Amino acid sequence: MADRSKTRRRGGGRAGNAARRMTASIDQMPWNPPINHDRPTEPLGPEGVQAIHDGAMRILEDIGIEFLNEEALGLFKQAGCKVTGTNVRMGRDWVMEMLGHAPAQFDITPRNPDRKITIGGKHILFGNVSSPPNYFDLEIGKKVAGSRAQCADLLRLTQFFNCIHFAGGYPVEPVDIHASVRHLDVVYDKMTLTDKVAHAYSLGKERVEDVMEMVKIASGLTEEAFAAKPHMYTNINSTSPLKHDVPMIDGCLRCVRRGQAVVVTPFTLAGAMAPVTMSGAVTLSIAEALSAIALFQYVAPGAACVIGTFTSNVDMKSGAPAFGTPEYMRATQMTGQMARFYGLPMRASGVCAANVPDGQAMWETSNSLWSAVQSGTNVVYHAAGWLEGGLIASPEKFVMDCEVLQMIQRYMEPAVIATTPDDIAVAAIKEVGPNGHFFGIDHTQERYETAFYQPFASDWRNFEAWEAAGGVWTAERAHRIFNDIIHNFEAPPMDVAVKDALADFVARRKAEGGAPTDF
Amino acid sequence: MADRSKTRRRGGGRAGNAARRMTASIDQMPWNPPINHDRPTEPLGPEGVQAIHDGAMRILEDIGIEFLNEEALGLFKQAGCKVTGTNVRMGRDWVMEMLGHAPAQFDITPRNPDRKITIGGKHILFGNVSSPPNYFDLEIGKKVAGSRAQCADLLRLTQFFNCIHFAGGYPVEPVDIHASVRHLDVVYDKMTLTDKVAHAYSLGKERVEDVMEMVKIASGLTEEAFAAKPHMYTNINSTSPLKHDVPMIDGCLRCVRRGQAVVVTPFTLAGAMAPVTMSGAVTLSIAEALSAIALFQYVAPGAACVIGTFTSNVDMKSGAPAFGTPEYMRATQMTGQMARFYGLPMRASGVCAANVPDGQAMWETSNSLWSAVQSGTNVVYHAAGWLEGGLIASPEKFVMDCEVLQMIQRYMEPAVIATTPDDIAVAAIKEVGPNGHFFGIDHTQERYETAFYQPFASDWRNFEAWEAAGGVWTAERAHRIFNDIIHNFEAPPMDVAVKDALADFVARRKAEGGAPTDF
Repeated sequence: MADRSKTRRRGGGRAGNAARRMTASIDQMPWNPPINHDRPTEPLGPEGVQAIHDGAMRILEDIGIEFLNEEALGLFKQAGCKVTGTNVRMGRDWVMEMLGHAPAQFDITPRNPDRKITIGGKHILFGNVSSPPNYFDLEIGKKVAGSRAQCADLLRLTQFFNCIHFAGGYPVEPVDIHASVRHLDVVYDKMTLTDKVAHAYSLGKERVEDVMEMVKIASGLTEEAFAAKPHMYTNINSTSPLKHDVPMIDGCLRCVRRGQAVVVTPFTLAGAMAPVTMSGAVTLSIAEALSAIALFQYVAPGAACVIGTFTSNVDMKSGAPAFGTPEYMRATQMTGQMARFYGLPMRASGVCAANVPDGQAMWETSNSLWSAVQSGTNVVYHAAGWLEGGLIASPEKFVMDCEVLQMIQRYMEPAVIATTPDDIAVAAIKEVGPNGHFFGIDHTQERYETAFYQPFASDWRNFEAWEAAGGVWTAERAHRIFNDIIHNFEAPPMDVAVKDALADFVARRKAEGGAPTDF
Repeated sequence: MADRSKTRRRGGGRAGNAARRMTASIDQMPWNPPINHDRPTEPLGPEGVQAIHDGAMRILEDIGIEFLNEEALGLFKQAGCKVTGTNVRMGRDWVMEMLGHAPAQFDITPRNPDRKITIGGKHILFGNVSSPPNYFDLEIGKKVAGSRAQCADLLRLTQFFNCIHFAGGYPVEPVDIHASVRHLDVVYDKMTLTDKVAHAYSLGKERVEDVMEMVKIASGLTEEAFAAKPHMYTNINSTSPLKHDVPMIDGCLRCVRRGQAVVVTPFTLAGAMAPVTMSGAVTLSIAEALSAIALFQYVAPGAACVIGTFTSNVDMKSGAPAFGTPEYMRATQMTGQMARFYGLPMRASGVCAANVPDGQAMWETSNSLWSAVQSGTNVVYHAAGWLEGGLIASPEKFVMDCEVLQMIQRYMEPAVIATTPDDIAVAAIKEVGPNGHFFGIDHTQERYETAFYQPFASDWRNFEAWEAAGGVWTAERAHRIFNDIIHNFEAPPMDVAVKDALADFVARRKAEGGAPTDF
């Protein structure tokens, strides 16, 4: 079922009818998570890698990281680390020994096994925007607090686009649902509207345990089968500088003990919560991430861990975060080198500071996405739909970003760079000669339909034809595509019994009061 | 004088007053053509490079290239190539011997020696959009035929922006000037409004010779001094497939014989004038370019030559050219590998198919510009101002592109990736500790002003502040910046006698009838 929205152009066959029902409006590429064969861009020489590594180790050994979580402090003590109050100092030998347990690559299998994703190696995966508190679309025309309906629409986009390989956090925070039960409703929507790998927020034990239960129910798994391998994941941020809070570490410990994956992503904003120098901000980020990953490997050797980067810089004028900057790109590339140094899969993001889905939004997002490619990133969070430094989710931006993501997928297809004799095509060149063209020859006709990337949001007509069709700018075209997708959306199949079991679970947990909201 | 529009932030000092006069509105980076230290992205293995090389050589040896220029045919005969009518076949040994004469790097020195540019090696240079017949801006709101006034405004942008390192062809074709004298008026405007390296169209001997004379006059050079090294350049396209026309080859021969630089850029559109396979289109492009460069090296060994790429693909639906596609990116990267294989500097472009300066325009242009960076391109044509596949010049797009170009320049500054102990900043991290922030500490204060890229067109404020300031989208902001720059523009200094001599030359040549228009 993974290719149910496979395109007419590329697909047809058994999936053709479903594709036609699912979208009358656009052709898209089939589900096929890409492999990034490009050699990463590596701004650091070996001595630069060593300098960041040594800096991170000195932070861990001499300065220490604050762990506010009591259980973590006990574990660190047990492991022989120096624990002073909430400060934990750990030797580099121990840290490197723990990192040695971490797998360089692992799979996560959601309820639809065809949507299994592989994290690590040369794999690169894209996920939807996660966690903006606000929503903006061209019809509303202003920034509004997120709702469950908007969140569900963005989950529909997450499911619809084959270039979105996993479902991140809430694509917009539905503030019309009480925080105590929000996770239950949104994860119910996520489980029923998508069949892709899902995420749990580490915001208290109830939230993360509830999501694990719902993933188990949706996948029809016993506890043993669930815990045997990753079926979902959590993502945490440190509280930079130098601190991990209570619920985030708690959520990760719960996940790794039940075999689920964790992503540790410090948010080191150079000049604010991190040094003003990019390598300094990266060094702090590495230290914060490794301290947590070392703990998780101590608790569950071989646990599926990803090192995340969210290093950017502030605006020098206002102190506000900036995204998709040259400094952001270099920090991401440097972190990629460090992730390979430690043998860990890596997460980065698709980000921008722009407030609306315009030119700035796309140059900033393009910068961040290409730096993910260049850095050998395995997991790209927020790859579609992000605006205003993550404070706004936008369906138009989601659609526009998916065009860029599809182009990156196509860019990575080996066919584009093939150099067999048929590709070099000297015979075709001879056949056409100096006075012909290549439109009609067999060499072209045999390859024409799949030779080039076919866009769905870009308008490649000339100005006159574009103008005659209404002169519609990109964001407005994206809005129309968004509406078409939502109106034609069909949820992925789910057994009625499973759906009922999920609903029963939600009802029961709501009756129990959901999760506490007092932290 | 090269840094007269140096920024207040970065500049000050002697150039400060001029900078303040020149622009009340924006800060920009100083004139400082970047060095691209990134290892290029190389999609081809050694066997792929060899396959394209062998294909190109087989085209040159077995199929041959049409040269419609009689003088060129005579020269090829003299060199021992097989000339049959207009078909020229040349052995790979001879071609490689000729390429052996070509310099891997050379300088071009315009009338202001501070604006000297170095082409080749790790240098990367950006030029303005060249040759669109039409103009679009937000005030006019529609596509119109280009005029001299619009052309002059775009030349002002070319001069103003320090990230634009050379002046390409006409930034818009001023069709309100008769074709016979158009080159005289535009080059007069170019010589007086800019002091950067200039270009001559190879469209008949009068045009290219007139430009050489005007560059001589503007630079105050004797013929001997002019011919001693490159002071300007021409760029030609082949008539793909497999053909070089009369005036383009004539113009290049005139340039190389007088020591000036030439860029040879086939326009191989995969699926139309070139094979539908990208490596096939690149192979054809290489063959066409090398055939001309070999001729120029035969005529003037050591002549300054650049191999250009303009390989893209058609839209599968309409047959129209597409730009900034995944296929375009890979073709550019492959051509970069071939340029290094032949030891030639390389030219690529900043391009898009979009009709207006919106999101699509910026993701397509970002794709093309990043592929120029990834491919080790030395000269980026059309880097600012291009729309509609090169049929429209846009001042808003020019301004927006310059923001991206500045970010690429900043991306290439070694400071961004420095890893000295002060950059790693463990002492600063220790000083701040787990409960502080980095805003106020000396480590930040000492570096803050120059630590990060400072944008001029991007709006990094939050949504509320942006909305309160009018909620202006990027293209409209760029329009205002364009107006500010034009209204505050001061032409670079030029001796009155030189200006008079240029005017006299133009008047005399107009009286003589300018250039024929019957080819």
